[in-house]
Amino acid sequence: MPTVIAVDAMGSDRAPKPEIEGAILAARDYDVRVLLVGEETRLRAFLADHPRAAQLPIGVVHASEAIGMREPPARAVRAKRDSSMRVGLRLVREGRAAGFVTAGNTGAAMATAKMVLGTLAGVDRPALAAVFPTATGKASILLDVGANVDSRPHALQQFAVMGEIYSRHIFGVARPRVGLLSIGEEESKGNELTRHAFALLKELPLDFVGNVEGRDLYRGAVDVIVCDGFAGNVALKVSEGVADLVRALLKESLESTVAAKVGFLLARHAFQDFKRRLDYSEYGGAPLLGVKGACIITHGSANNNAVKNSIRVAAEFSTRNVMARIEEELSSRRGKPRHAAGKETRERIHS
Amino acid sequence: MPTVIAVDAMGSDRAPKPEIEGAILAARDYDVRVLLVGEETRLRAFLADHPRAAQLPIGVVHASEAIGMREPPARAVRAKRDSSMRVGLRLVREGRAAGFVTAGNTGAAMATAKMVLGTLAGVDRPALAAVFPTATGKASILLDVGANVDSRPHALQQFAVMGEIYSRHIFGVARPRVGLLSIGEEESKGNELTRHAFALLKELPLDFVGNVEGRDLYRGAVDVIVCDGFAGNVALKVSEGVADLVRALLKESLESTVAAKVGFLLARHAFQDFKRRLDYSEYGGAPLLGVKGACIITHGSANNNAVKNSIRVAAEFSTRNVMARIEEELSSRRGKPRHAAGKETRERIHS
Repeated sequence: MPTVIAVDAMGSDRAPKPEIEGAILAARDYDVRVLLVGEETRLRAFLADHPRAAQLPIGVVHASEAIGMREPPARAVRAKRDSSMRVGLRLVREGRAAGFVTAGNTGAAMATAKMVLGTLAGVDRPALAAVFPTATGKASILLDVGANVDSRPHALQQFAVMGEIYSRHIFGVARPRVGLLSIGEEESKGNELTRHAFALLKELPLDFVGNVEGRDLYRGAVDVIVCDGFAGNVALKVSEGVADLVRALLKESLESTVAAKVGFLLARHAFQDFKRRLDYSEYGGAPLLGVKGACIITHGSANNNAVKNSIRVAAEFSTRNVMARIEEELSSRRGKPRHAAGKETRERIHS
Repeated sequence: MPTVIAVDAMGSDRAPKPEIEGAILAARDYDVRVLLVGEETRLRAFLADHPRAAQLPIGVVHASEAIGMREPPARAVRAKRDSSMRVGLRLVREGRAAGFVTAGNTGAAMATAKMVLGTLAGVDRPALAAVFPTATGKASILLDVGANVDSRPHALQQFAVMGEIYSRHIFGVARPRVGLLSIGEEESKGNELTRHAFALLKELPLDFVGNVEGRDLYRGAVDVIVCDGFAGNVALKVSEGVADLVRALLKESLESTVAAKVGFLLARHAFQDFKRRLDYSEYGGAPLLGVKGACIITHGSANNNAVKNSIRVAAEFSTRNVMARIEEELSSRRGKPRHAAGKETRERIHS
């Protein structure tokens, strides 16, 4: 039986084109059935232009509304009860789909997922996990990249557990190395949050390597990097900013002279290779870890390849029981006594 | 009369070579006299290899110790009373130099500068300001990038004032646009610190454009971006990480086939242009704003060009009276009544 994945067909900047094409690629290459969620007439018209779609396991589920990229999430989630996001996530809650993929408004997707799916037992705060390319070719996972702000040390401890399970079961890393994002390697370096989180991460039965710095995101020496959602979102957006600037400057420089243009033509396969290796979309989107169901959020500028990979990751979350493993690990930790240092920390920060 | 700049000749990874060569370039091109601070015998031996140095206004001041890159700053500052940093900064305090440049241990440099020079009247916390290249070719300034952690909203307000003065008097921007680093554009977006800092930044008599995101560092639409030292340090290190990865992947890809290698040779001027435009060192190092004297900290991997530009910036700080302007602005603000919202904020966060 193929795994059923619901795809928000109205989410991306160029919706529904990348969503429909990504669905076709995924349905062709993986053992999945895709339910495209959105305005039915429009989606059927698009599908009619892709004759091979008729032979593939692709269905359409109607949703009368769509949430725009610029809409304030809280209002959109409240007002649009028949949005493609809400309808898609409802399919997961009702067991009609095993996972959900959207390239839409990230804030609205996170809020809708928390509301419709709810949070796993043992999880205080879901976290958005982003994947970064590294020098070694391995991916590194950073979480949280924006599901929360002002996190407590205890939340960072849970992020570490969730990220480690994600790394093991989706990326197949046998014993992931977990680091804490800070501004210096020594335990004493960092802010109040990281110093207290450090103590809690040391308690966990996983390979905690201590503090890491922003550079380590791209070095590939660490598999999972934990941080609060503010710092993580800054790291993610700054990375996108540098990558955009690099592309723009490289393009300008390579178009500046005839010799450079000829050089570029000769080296164009090398540039394609370079672009592919720097491309996050190869890894699929960012999962919202800790909600009851696989929910993958990909970039608004996602192309069909990014949608395809997000569908693959959503299906893998389901077949490999990632959420169940997170719940098991975190609810079993609930009963365990914690270090006095840990407790004290949380009280000091939140008194 | 040339402006006298003291240069820590023992700071960088390859000291004293880049320092001495940078000093020679600066003394040749600018109206400065450079005092190289470090082990005198060693420095004189190096200078002897550069015959033209003898014709230039370059002096040597002896310091018997040097602080290593990996030394814990607090200990190094306490233990090494005759370090090249301490001796160099003492020259500034005693009025024998107008500014100081180091490519050494950043933590030690900041701690030594605060201790030896002291903080300007009206400044609660000095801030380290880094300069980023942007798509428009203009520089953007980010502060604080690591002089402080766990900053108060009020400190961010002072950072805005200092960064704006830096942008006006060093980069010549007539009316700098100032943004607050956050994770969404609306005023309500961000963490507790940024939401409260937003209210305080609105009170300032400068062009505050509201929240900006990590991507905006590289877009050139904002001249000054304010943040706490933890987020700023993450942004800086992540940027360096992406840039390193880009260079490594590009190099690998361009060496992968004969066609790519030939293409690279044809386009090599374009690549040099690209590298130069992405190179932070063109702008000089990062000034520590808010201490009594110009103190410029540049990267440990600084080359002679980075040292040269840092010397230029240190001299400009002095001739354009940047620190005096900061003191004037911030001590005059001291007496002014502040919004009730601002006060309440500080009390809530720090109770």
